[in-house]
Amino acid sequence: MRAVIIAVGDELTSGATVDTNSAWLADGLGRRGIAVARHVTVGDDTGAIAAAVAAAAEADVVLITGGLGPTADDLSRQGLADAMGAELREDARQIERIAARFASFGREMKPSNRSQALVPEGARPIDNDWGTAPGLAATVGAARVFVLPGVPREMEAMFAAKVFPELPAAGAVARRLIHTYGTGESDVGETIVDLMARGRNPAVGTTAKAGVITVRVNASADTPGEAEALADEAAAEVRRRLGELVFGEGPGTLPAAVGELLAAAGETLATAESCTGGLIARMITDVPGASRYYLGGAVAYANEAKTDLAGVDPALIEAHGAVSDEVAEALAVGIRRRLGADWSVATTGVAGPTGGTDAKPVGLVCMAVAGPTGGEVHRRTFPGDRDVVRGRAALALLNHLRLALTGSAAQRENR
Amino acid sequence: MRAVIIAVGDELTSGATVDTNSAWLADGLGRRGIAVARHVTVGDDTGAIAAAVAAAAEADVVLITGGLGPTADDLSRQGLADAMGAELREDARQIERIAARFASFGREMKPSNRSQALVPEGARPIDNDWGTAPGLAATVGAARVFVLPGVPREMEAMFAAKVFPELPAAGAVARRLIHTYGTGESDVGETIVDLMARGRNPAVGTTAKAGVITVRVNASADTPGEAEALADEAAAEVRRRLGELVFGEGPGTLPAAVGELLAAAGETLATAESCTGGLIARMITDVPGASRYYLGGAVAYANEAKTDLAGVDPALIEAHGAVSDEVAEALAVGIRRRLGADWSVATTGVAGPTGGTDAKPVGLVCMAVAGPTGGEVHRRTFPGDRDVVRGRAALALLNHLRLALTGSAAQRENR
Repeated sequence: MRAVIIAVGDELTSGATVDTNSAWLADGLGRRGIAVARHVTVGDDTGAIAAAVAAAAEADVVLITGGLGPTADDLSRQGLADAMGAELREDARQIERIAARFASFGREMKPSNRSQALVPEGARPIDNDWGTAPGLAATVGAARVFVLPGVPREMEAMFAAKVFPELPAAGAVARRLIHTYGTGESDVGETIVDLMARGRNPAVGTTAKAGVITVRVNASADTPGEAEALADEAAAEVRRRLGELVFGEGPGTLPAAVGELLAAAGETLATAESCTGGLIARMITDVPGASRYYLGGAVAYANEAKTDLAGVDPALIEAHGAVSDEVAEALAVGIRRRLGADWSVATTGVAGPTGGTDAKPVGLVCMAVAGPTGGEVHRRTFPGDRDVVRGRAALALLNHLRLALTGSAAQRENR
Repeated sequence: MRAVIIAVGDELTSGATVDTNSAWLADGLGRRGIAVARHVTVGDDTGAIAAAVAAAAEADVVLITGGLGPTADDLSRQGLADAMGAELREDARQIERIAARFASFGREMKPSNRSQALVPEGARPIDNDWGTAPGLAATVGAARVFVLPGVPREMEAMFAAKVFPELPAAGAVARRLIHTYGTGESDVGETIVDLMARGRNPAVGTTAKAGVITVRVNASADTPGEAEALADEAAAEVRRRLGELVFGEGPGTLPAAVGELLAAAGETLATAESCTGGLIARMITDVPGASRYYLGGAVAYANEAKTDLAGVDPALIEAHGAVSDEVAEALAVGIRRRLGADWSVATTGVAGPTGGTDAKPVGLVCMAVAGPTGGEVHRRTFPGDRDVVRGRAALALLNHLRLALTGSAAQRENR
C-alpha cells in the first residue's frame, strides 16, 4: 500500500513558506500502515498540478493540499479535473454550505467564493466544517485521490474526520516515542543496536533534536491489539536499557516531566535566569497547569537585578564576576528563599555572540540547582550560536533538576 | 531558467522530519532569478533517487539534499551514478580530506566513511569544509546537478560558498521584506492593492505569521543596480502607505525594533510577566546586545511572586483578582520602580486551557506599559490555544511599547 503526497502553491515552490502539511499527512498515513513513496510540491499552475496527479496514479492513495481558495490562482480543482479528463460543475449543496458559513459570521458570500463549490464530474465534495473550501474525493487510475485545503488547521481537521476513516487499512500499526536526555545519539544507538537492525518488527530508530534523543518504535501487525502489544514490549526493553536517560514518552517534554515530578511530590519551583533570560520560565509555563508547582522567578539580566530580585550580594559579583559558579549558586539560593520555593534553578553565562574572554568564553554557562537538601552547580561550555547556547543550557539545567527530583523521590521512598 | 529541488530521506517521506532544506534552497535560487518548478521528496532508495533525477533532467538546475552519510541507507551517490549511467569511483583527495577531518578531532576515520569519497565517473566532488560528506556536481541531460548533505548547517554553508557562485544567473533580483503589526492581512493588502497587481515588477505580496504581516517586494532587472533601485522605490512607497504599522525590515523582529528605539534613546526596560511566564523576557533577550537596555524582570506567576518581586499590594489582588487591569498596571509600575528602569511592560491573563470564567474567559490578557510620562493598560481576548494566546499577547504588548517609545521620541524632538 503506497501513497504520494502533493502540495500546491507558489509560496511553497518559491520557498516563502515551508510545507509542513506533507510531513503531517505522511505521519497520518503511517498510522494507517500506508507507506509514502514520494512528496511532490508544484506551483499554482493547472498543467503542473494535472501532471503531478497523473504521475501519481500508480499509487494506492494520493493526498493533495492547497489550491482550493477563492482566487484566480487557486487551481487544484481544475488540475484534478484535467487529470480526470472531466469538466467542473457547480455543486448546489456546497454553494449553500458556503453561503451559510458567511451568514453565520453576519456576512454575505462574495461572488469569488462560488468557484469553491466547483467539483469535477465523477468526483465528490468533502464537507469542510472548519472553513469555506470543500475538499474533493476522486479516483484517478488505481489511486484514491483526496484534495484538502492548504490551511493546516482546516487540513488536519478534515483529514482526521473525513479522510482517515475512508483510507484502506494496510494492517495495524502502533507507535511509541521514548525521549532521552544526557548522552549522544551514537551512545543511545549502541545501547539498542540489536533492536535497530534493519528489517526487524518493531522497527526501532533514533532522531536527535536540540540535545534530546528520541527512540522511535513502529510495530506492524494484522490487528491493533497485536501491534500495541509488540510496541509495548519493545518500548519496555528500550526503557530498561536506557534507564535514567529516559525522561518521557509520546508528546512528553522535559519541562512537563519536571512538572510531573514536582506535582507528584507536592513541591514548588522558582527560577533565576541571567543568560537564558526567561527561556526556562517560558518552557516551564508552556505546560498547562504549571501554576500547581511553579511560583515564578527573576530574569536577572543586569547585575543590579541579580541583587534587587534574587538578593545576590554585590560583593560576590565583584569578587567572582557575574558569570561564575558562586553567582549561579547565589541566584538559586536567593530566589528559592525570596519566593519560599522547595526547589530552584539558576543560570548565568555568556550567550554571545560577543562578551567572551579566554577565561569565560562564549558558550560558558554556570547552572545551579537548589533544593531541600542543598544544591549543586554545573559548568559547561556549549558550542553554537546564541539561540543554541541558550536552548542547550536550559535543557541541560532542567535535566539536572529532573535527576535531583528523581533522587529526592527515591530517598523519600527509602526512608 | 527553471530548477527542480530533490530531498532524499526516509525520515522525510515518513513525516518524522519536516523538510526545511527545499524551501531554503528555493529562496536562494530565487535570489539568482531562478524559478523553482517543483520540489520532490523520495526515500532512501536508489531507484527512486535515480528516477527523480532523470525526471528532473529537463530543468536547467537540479539541487539534491541528503543521502550522503556513511551508512548503508545513504544512497544519493549511487542514485546519481545510475541516472548518469556511470560507475562510482573512490576519490583519493576526498579520502585524504575526510581522514584529515577525523584527525583534527583526534579520531581515526572509520571504514564506513570511505563510502563518502565515492564519486560517479564524469561528476566532480565539492569540498565540504563543515562536515565529512563531500557534495557532488554533475551534468544530467541539459541540467546542472548539485548534491549537498542533508544537515541544514552543512547544506547552507556549502550552497552559499560553493554552489551559488556557479549557478547560471538569470538577470538580477533584489528583495525587500517590510514587517507590520497592528492590523489584518486584508487591510494591509487593500492599502497596497495596486502595487500587488499580478504581472507587475516589482512583484509585491503579503504573508501573515502570528499576527505579523510582512510585505514582500521582489524586483527583477538586467543589472543588480537597476533591481536594487526598483526594490528601494517600491519599498519606500509601501512604507509611506503603511505608516506606523511598519516596525522593521529584512531580518528585523519586533523585539529588535523595540531594542533599537530604547538604545537610541539611552533608556532601559524591565518586565513583569504573569501569563506570558518569561516569554517576553526571552524574546527581548533573543536579541544580541539586549543588555544595553534590558535590566531584567519578574516572572510573577503565583500571587505571592507578584508581591515579592514586583511589590504588588496583596489587597489589590484581593479586590480585583490577579487578572485585572489594576494588577497589570501595578506589576508594570512596581517592577519599573524596583529595577529603576525608564520603561516597563507587564502581563496578567488567562492563557488556558482551563481557568476561564464568564467574566474572565480563556484568552483574556491585561497588558500594561509604564514609562517616564505615565502608563497605559490594554485589555484583549485572544482566540486560540495556550501557545497562541501567549505569543499574540507578547507581540501585542511589545507593539504597544514600540508605539509609546516612538511617541516619546517624537515629543523629545518637538521640545
